[in-house]
Amino acid sequence: MDVGVVVNMSGDAARQNDDAAAPSFDRMFALVESDLGRVNQHILDQMQSPVALIPQLAGHLIAAGGKRIRPMLTLAAAKLCNYTGSRHIGLAASVEFIHTATLLHDDVVDESALRRGQDSANALWGNQASVLVGDFLFSRAFQLMVADGSLPVLKILSDASAVIAEGEVLQLTTANEPQTSEEDYLQVIKSKTATLFAAASRVGAAVAERPSAEDAALDSYGMNLGIAFQLIDDVLDYSAKQAELGKAIGDDFREGKVTLPMILAWRRGGDEERAFWRRTVARLEQEDGDLQRAIEIMQSRDALADSVDRARHYGAVARDALGIFPQSEIKDAMLELIDFCITRAH
Amino acid sequence: MDVGVVVNMSGDAARQNDDAAAPSFDRMFALVESDLGRVNQHILDQMQSPVALIPQLAGHLIAAGGKRIRPMLTLAAAKLCNYTGSRHIGLAASVEFIHTATLLHDDVVDESALRRGQDSANALWGNQASVLVGDFLFSRAFQLMVADGSLPVLKILSDASAVIAEGEVLQLTTANEPQTSEEDYLQVIKSKTATLFAAASRVGAAVAERPSAEDAALDSYGMNLGIAFQLIDDVLDYSAKQAELGKAIGDDFREGKVTLPMILAWRRGGDEERAFWRRTVARLEQEDGDLQRAIEIMQSRDALADSVDRARHYGAVARDALGIFPQSEIKDAMLELIDFCITRAH
Repeated sequence: MDVGVVVNMSGDAARQNDDAAAPSFDRMFALVESDLGRVNQHILDQMQSPVALIPQLAGHLIAAGGKRIRPMLTLAAAKLCNYTGSRHIGLAASVEFIHTATLLHDDVVDESALRRGQDSANALWGNQASVLVGDFLFSRAFQLMVADGSLPVLKILSDASAVIAEGEVLQLTTANEPQTSEEDYLQVIKSKTATLFAAASRVGAAVAERPSAEDAALDSYGMNLGIAFQLIDDVLDYSAKQAELGKAIGDDFREGKVTLPMILAWRRGGDEERAFWRRTVARLEQEDGDLQRAIEIMQSRDALADSVDRARHYGAVARDALGIFPQSEIKDAMLELIDFCITRAH
Repeated sequence: MDVGVVVNMSGDAARQNDDAAAPSFDRMFALVESDLGRVNQHILDQMQSPVALIPQLAGHLIAAGGKRIRPMLTLAAAKLCNYTGSRHIGLAASVEFIHTATLLHDDVVDESALRRGQDSANALWGNQASVLVGDFLFSRAFQLMVADGSLPVLKILSDASAVIAEGEVLQLTTANEPQTSEEDYLQVIKSKTATLFAAASRVGAAVAERPSAEDAALDSYGMNLGIAFQLIDDVLDYSAKQAELGKAIGDDFREGKVTLPMILAWRRGGDEERAFWRRTVARLEQEDGDLQRAIEIMQSRDALADSVDRARHYGAVARDALGIFPQSEIKDAMLELIDFCITRAH
């Protein structure tokens, strides 16, 4: 599950920043803050509809905050490519609409009662409204792209949308299968998370009409950052740090969602541990204390620490992808974002 | 619910055609048959995915037949506009994908167990897969449009998609409300059915790059045909004719979906009848014999016959919309299609 980073800079992130060594989100946020304000306004304008339930439900999810990391990638990439127009605003909103539509449908699929610590839209308005408002936001995303008028951008985002949906279907087939391979897991998180990170980044190069090498570099940056981000998200679902931030842990475990920490624990475990995973994850027969037991097994098998190491690998690839761009404030912020995404696990 | 006409020409429609006076689907079918074969092949090719569940589930719905009336409108409109290229094939497939995605999500929203007389996809594979495969088909529809490369076509279909989703949400708010106004009902069926009929027809003019008067005429033809089509569908759900065709009746009643026959019956009924509608539709407290009672009330209040009359009105508008086109075989077939859509109520 994509639980994400905290963008409210007044709280934890600000405190974290007091520690000079800790990577933070502040620099990125400061550089794109004014553009992001315009994106937020555009999002609010474009989610309006004479059908009152649409802005109500969309507003619950969109206006509630959330990290806006995907539209931020579009804004940052456009800046990195020295883009000076304003097309990136509408397209960043479009990216966020695609993401929000996906979240609404995800919550229906997962039967989630909570999203970002609040009641989820489907818990409040029912699955029906969540499915249909998701469809509306998805359609609206395409309307925004059509209004922008760039076929290359439409191609980037329609291709990404198809891959995301494919990844979500693939994820259904890996659920409750602790024997899932690391490759299949990677395929799922690439499709359902990293592809939109990559597409969001590429849109920045597309509006700036940069050469294909820069498009490819931003594709790689977004894809690898997205993989690292999702790996860390999946670690956080078993992490004490996450619990400290006041967020629920164990959602994936309770749903029988198979992520890398569990895959590693399964592969490294003996018969007795595999029987535990079969009972709790494959058959979803869970008792009090099982989540704690799962975390203890993962720790004893180094499954959490090694999942973070895997994330570091993808972070390193993302870093080198930006090597073709000259040094700049925004490049530094994009590099720091990689580190921030990874270190939030600690 | 959109249950539609029967396209298999070997059965009822062929018999119906023995009666020289009865409008049929045959002429239209014969004129677009070879193009429709190409569309069907394109649909089969484009619903492939390495994720096996996608072609399985999509194939259940798409390959199972269905009427293909929407892609047929694109093919017919292109022919009416003397289009000689092949762009209409991929775009007709795109229209059918949008429709199929909508059906998949509709069945989840309605919790339908049957679709076209077969187990619905959500009954067979679960709501999760239906939501996600619907998302995939919707994304694939946009990929097909992007491959076609026409921004005007993308605008027609992305605008239509947003209106469809809006209409579906609006429909949620009219459910179980027998006091729904005729205007609100019309708004729902325009959005959820007629808008895609109109868009499908307009795409034919768009590929032929015809002047805006022809685009407007096809918009009006599709919109009014779609309204008539949905009105008749809603009548058929209470019709003996429908039962004769071996199709279930009473789905709308059981779900508390409010359509014109019920709206008219409510407005024309007295206190005792309104109490019946409140119990069965607003509170969904239904007993054996209630569906029969509902049909009897509708008949005694002329609600079914007058709903067909309303459909005739829209059919007449659709007919006149085509007045700007010179006589041709395809125009005659498009006019006959209007009559066929309406007379299937008898």
